[in-house]
Amino acid sequence: MSSLDQLLQTGDWKGEKHVPVIHAPETIKSDELTEIKISIGDAIKHPNTLEHHIAWLKLFYLPEGGKFPVELASFECRAHGEADAYDEPNTSTNVKLKKSGTFYALSYCNIHGLWQSSKAIVVE
Amino acid sequence: MSSLDQLLQTGDWKGEKHVPVIHAPETIKSDELTEIKISIGDAIKHPNTLEHHIAWLKLFYLPEGGKFPVELASFECRAHGEADAYDEPNTSTNVKLKKSGTFYALSYCNIHGLWQSSKAIVVE
Amino acid sequence: MSSLDQLLQTGDWKGEKHVPVIHAPETIKSDELTEIKISIGDAIKHPNTLEHHIAWLKLFYLPEGGKFPVELASFECRAHGEADAYDEPNTSTNVKLKKSGTFYALSYCNIHGLWQSSKAIVVE
Amino acid sequence: MSSLDQLLQTGDWKGEKHVPVIHAPETIKSDELTEIKISIGDAIKHPNTLEHHIAWLKLFYLPEGGKFPVELASFECRAHGEADAYDEPNTSTNVKLKKSGTFYALSYCNIHGLWQSSKAIVVE
Ligand SMILES: [Fe+3]
Ligand SMILES: [Fe+3]
Ligand SMILES: [Fe+3]
Ligand SMILES: [Fe+3]
Repeated sequence: MSSLDQLLQTGDWKGEKHVPVIHAPETIKSDELTEIKISIGDAIKHPNTLEHHIAWLKLFYLPEGGKFPVELASFECRAHGEADAYDEPNTSTNVKLKKSGTFYALSYCNIHGLWQSSKAIVVE
Repeated sequence: MSSLDQLLQTGDWKGEKHVPVIHAPETIKSDELTEIKISIGDAIKHPNTLEHHIAWLKLFYLPEGGKFPVELASFECRAHGEADAYDEPNTSTNVKLKKSGTFYALSYCNIHGLWQSSKAIVVE
Repeated sequence: MSSLDQLLQTGDWKGEKHVPVIHAPETIKSDELTEIKISIGDAIKHPNTLEHHIAWLKLFYLPEGGKFPVELASFECRAHGEADAYDEPNTSTNVKLKKSGTFYALSYCNIHGLWQSSKAIVVE
Repeated sequence: MSSLDQLLQTGDWKGEKHVPVIHAPETIKSDELTEIKISIGDAIKHPNTLEHHIAWLKLFYLPEGGKFPVELASFECRAHGEADAYDEPNTSTNVKLKKSGTFYALSYCNIHGLWQSSKAIVVE
């Protein structure tokens, strides 16, 4: 019997359409509001149907030297054709940080499970 | 005893810091991916502390002549100072629509309850 | 153009399968942990398929004399046939309250929109 | 730079107050609705304050021989003292399954990060 951490998948987003991509500057200023974008399917679009879709994305942050990731934001893509409306896994949020560290994204496809990625962030 | 609909507040976002603002073009093309921004505090910033913060925002869409709103996206602002990290209620999503209608935003402040706003959208 | 509060539907759960039912004691003790159940489809089962399902339920509480409802809990039903697994809109949470007031439930069907119900609670 | 899977913590719930406990029968019947409870703090209560609380719990299921966990349910504990109301991380959901497999719980403390646990389930 595995544990959940063993089921978090990853890969290169250029070839694997499930991998969340974190779009953030390399360097940001301490306590300055900064837009972070997270998207899935930048290179290869993921399906968006009732049967198969990206359901949610989460963004976490671990400060350098920290042990516990802090959840920054959580996004749900809710419309997959209801009333001919579609919502795509391409979102943004605005954050303020004081310390360099790492962003982590976690996403969920209702058919292909959990996917993760990360990106370092320097706070000056 | 009231019902919940009577507790949904609204106002002018220029003077009332809780009202969600829907930033969308007046007109979009049918089935063309369009970015919608939703934000709170555009004119007067809302506090972002563990004691008092905007917890979430939702975006719905009602097609013209429809009766049932469709949820497009749901956003949670999760960090209110944990590890000196803050997440602000200023987010975006990407949608595709086929029919003109109305966007509705619903948001929640952990102290001041539920707030709503709306914006018409023309789909050509 | 309507506002979202006008789109919150309700009805008698015995005849309308979308109405959330709040199962709580009439009277609870101040600061004593109490289980509250919320369910949909007690009399007439709602479909649970990828095409048509209850997506979420929320529970709010308004203390007597208060103006702003407090969100107690939020539940998402996520599985509608993926890997032959189904999750039904029948959940519970445990709360502690100090003051009499009203519970409000809000739920969302991906086809039939938003539904509300309420139930008074006496805290002794 | 670590990846998020390395940050999923676990432990024995009898000594570690963050570990989610999955309460489910050892054996259930195929396609029979079954209540699953998930709780945190069964042995040692976790704080529930605005500064420090369990924010959410998720329940996943992996069928035997499967590769991708399916999310069954997601619960948010929202009240941590607002209007003297508290919501505890002690919830339930009702599921139907066709195949033996494993349940996984994932939970989040706003100070101590992500925690996981699992429990096998036999479906007859
Ligand atoms: Fe997929
Ligand atoms: Fe407020
Ligand atoms: Fe329905
Ligand atoms: Fe903790």
